Amino acid sequence: MPLVGKQTWRFPSTPRILSAASVVGNKEGQGPLGNDFDIVHKDPYVGTDSWEKAERKLTEEACEEAMRKAGLKSQDIDLVIAGDLLNQLITSSFAARTLAMPFLGIFGACSTSMQGLALAALLVDSGFAHKVIAATSSHNSTAERQFRFPTEYGGQKPPTAHCTVTGSGAALIGKNGSALKITHATIGKVIDLGVKNPWEMGAAMAPAAVDTITAHFRDTGRTLDDYDLILTGDLGRVGHSIAKQLLEQQGHQAGDKFHDCGVLIYYPDQEEVFSGGSGCACCAVVTYGHILKRMERGELKRVLVTATGALLSPTSTQQGESIPCIAHTVAIEMEDDMR
Amino acid sequence: MPLVGKQTWRFPSTPRILSAASVVGNKEGQGPLGNDFDIVHKDPYVGTDSWEKAERKLTEEACEEAMRKAGLKSQDIDLVIAGDLLNQLITSSFAARTLAMPFLGIFGACSTSMQGLALAALLVDSGFAHKVIAATSSHNSTAERQFRFPTEYGGQKPPTAHCTVTGSGAALIGKNGSALKITHATIGKVIDLGVKNPWEMGAAMAPAAVDTITAHFRDTGRTLDDYDLILTGDLGRVGHSIAKQLLEQQGHQAGDKFHDCGVLIYYPDQEEVFSGGSGCACCAVVTYGHILKRMERGELKRVLVTATGALLSPTSTQQGESIPCIAHTVAIEMEDDMR
Repeated sequence: MPLVGKQTWRFPSTPRILSAASVVGNKEGQGPLGNDFDIVHKDPYVGTDSWEKAERKLTEEACEEAMRKAGLKSQDIDLVIAGDLLNQLITSSFAARTLAMPFLGIFGACSTSMQGLALAALLVDSGFAHKVIAATSSHNSTAERQFRFPTEYGGQKPPTAHCTVTGSGAALIGKNGSALKITHATIGKVIDLGVKNPWEMGAAMAPAAVDTITAHFRDTGRTLDDYDLILTGDLGRVGHSIAKQLLEQQGHQAGDKFHDCGVLIYYPDQEEVFSGGSGCACCAVVTYGHILKRMERGELKRVLVTATGALLSPTSTQQGESIPCIAHTVAIEMEDDMR
Repeated sequence: MPLVGKQTWRFPSTPRILSAASVVGNKEGQGPLGNDFDIVHKDPYVGTDSWEKAERKLTEEACEEAMRKAGLKSQDIDLVIAGDLLNQLITSSFAARTLAMPFLGIFGACSTSMQGLALAALLVDSGFAHKVIAATSSHNSTAERQFRFPTEYGGQKPPTAHCTVTGSGAALIGKNGSALKITHATIGKVIDLGVKNPWEMGAAMAPAAVDTITAHFRDTGRTLDDYDLILTGDLGRVGHSIAKQLLEQQGHQAGDKFHDCGVLIYYPDQEEVFSGGSGCACCAVVTYGHILKRMERGELKRVLVTATGALLSPTSTQQGESIPCIAHTVAIEMEDDMR
C-alpha cells in the first residue's frame, strides 16, 4: 500500500526530478544563493507593464527553462500543477493558458510548492501521467499590493515580518532519466495555535512544520539520522528558532541539519528582509536552484523539504480570525550509483 | 496505463462514491431541486455572525453529513480535498481546521468540484488513500462582497449575469461499498477566446466545456451514445446554448441529453437568477444532491459531469485581461447488478 501510516505517501517507483528551474528578481540574485539561480531579473516588471504580468512571466520562464533543460517541449508534458498567492490564482491560470497543457490549480499559500511536487510525484508514480511540471511563484510587489499597503505609502514593518520572494521555481517530474528520486511525501493537517498577528507568520507556521515533520517520522519510521538536511519553507529567523525548540521538545535534536529557505535566501543585512523570505517562490527557488545542485554535487544525499503555508486572507484577519497553517513535506534522495 | 490519450485518467479499480451530501441556502431550497438537498438553510448567516463563517459552516456540514451517511468518522478519512471562490481559499482552509484531516487546497473556480472529485478518485484508485472527501462551496453574499458590489448598493445586473449558489457539496470516495463508480476523469486545458466582460461568463466558459468534453470523447473513444446525460457545471442559459451549438458544429448532436446545473438549480422566474446559477457549489450540489439520486433510482446509468471555471480575478479584469476558462469532467456510472 503506497499510503504509509496516516498521512504519508510512499512512491514505490520513486519518480525522478528530470530537471528544475529557478527564476528570481534582483534582490534574490544579490543574496547568498544568487549564483545558483538560472535567471535573475534586474527589472521588477520583467519587461512587462504590470507586476502581475511580471509574475506570470516568471512562471512561464521557469516552466520553459525546466523543459529546455530536460530537452522536452510543451507537447511532451501531460500536466502542469501550479499555484501562487494572487487572488483566484491568476498567475498560474494565465501562465497555464500560455503553456497550453492540462492544468490543475492548487493553493496552500507558501506550502504550495511541496503540495505540487507531491501531487506530481503521485501522478507519475501511479501512471496517470508520464511527465508533470510543478510550479509556484510569488512577486514582492504583487503581494504587497494585494495583502498589505500601496508600495508608495512606505508602510513600516516589524522585524518579525517577512519579505515576499520575487521568483518562480518549477520541477519537471518523470519516471526515469535522473538520479534525483522522490521517495515520500507527507500531507499536512491544518494547525492553528491561535496566532492572530499577520506580521508573526513564522511563529504561526512553526507548529504546522513540526507537526508534519514528526508525522513523517512516525509514518515512515525514519528519524533525523536518515536525513542530511531538514529544510523548512519560509519560517524565517523567528519561526525557525521556534520550530527548532518544538522539535527538540519532541526529542528531535535537529542541530545544524535544520535550515530554512527564508533564512538562506537573503543576507541578514540586505535591505528590508526582516525575519527572512516568504511567498510561494521561496521554498521552490531555494530547493530547485540551490539544494538540488548541492545534491548533484554529492554534498547531500537525503533531504526532507517541508514547505509551510499560512492560510489567512485579509478578510479573515479583518474579521479577527487566527491564522490556520499547514505544511507539506517531500523526501528527495540522490541515487547512489549515479552520484 | 491509466493515462488514456492525452488528458484522460481511466480508473482501473473504479473508485466508488460511498456517500454524498448537499447543503444549500433558501433560494436553492425553493428551486426545482429543493427536495433533493440534504439540508436547506433559511438563514443566510447559518447561525453565525458573518457570511464567511456561514459559508465555512456549509462546507463543514456537507462533509459531516457525507461521513454520517457512510457511517464513518473523521479519523476514518485520509484526506480532504477542498476549494472555494474566496481569496486564499479561506472557506476550505478554515473548514479543514475543524475537520482535522490532512488537507489539499485546490482552485479551479467553478470547475473545482470535478477537479476535486477527479483527484479523490485518483488517490483511492492508486492506493494513496482509502477514503477521501472532495468538497466545494460558495455563498452568494461572500461572492457578491468579494467580486462585485456591496449588497446594500443594489447594483443592477444584465440578463447574462449569473447568481452565485449558496451551498456546499461533498462526496466521500472509497474503494468499494457502493454501486456508484467513477470510471474516468478528463483534465482540461485553459481556453480563452478573448471574452473580457465578467458579466458574460457563460459565453466565456462554453468553449472550455466543449474542449474538455470532445477531448474526453477523443481520448476514450466514447461518444454521446455512451452517456445518458452530459451535464455542465454552470454555463447558464446563455452559455449552455452556445456550448450546444459548438458541440453540434463538431458533430455531436447532444439533443435533450445535454443539461447544465446552473439552469437546473433555479426556476427561470425565481428572483434575480438571471442566466442561471454559478459558484463552486453549483455543480457540486446539483450532482451530489440531484443527479446521484436519479442514478440510484435507475433513471440514469452513465453520466458525464463537466464542471466549468472562469479563472478571472477582479485585478485581471481591471487590468483589461480576457477570461481564461477551464473545464474538468468526471464520468460516473451506476453498476448494473446493484441498480
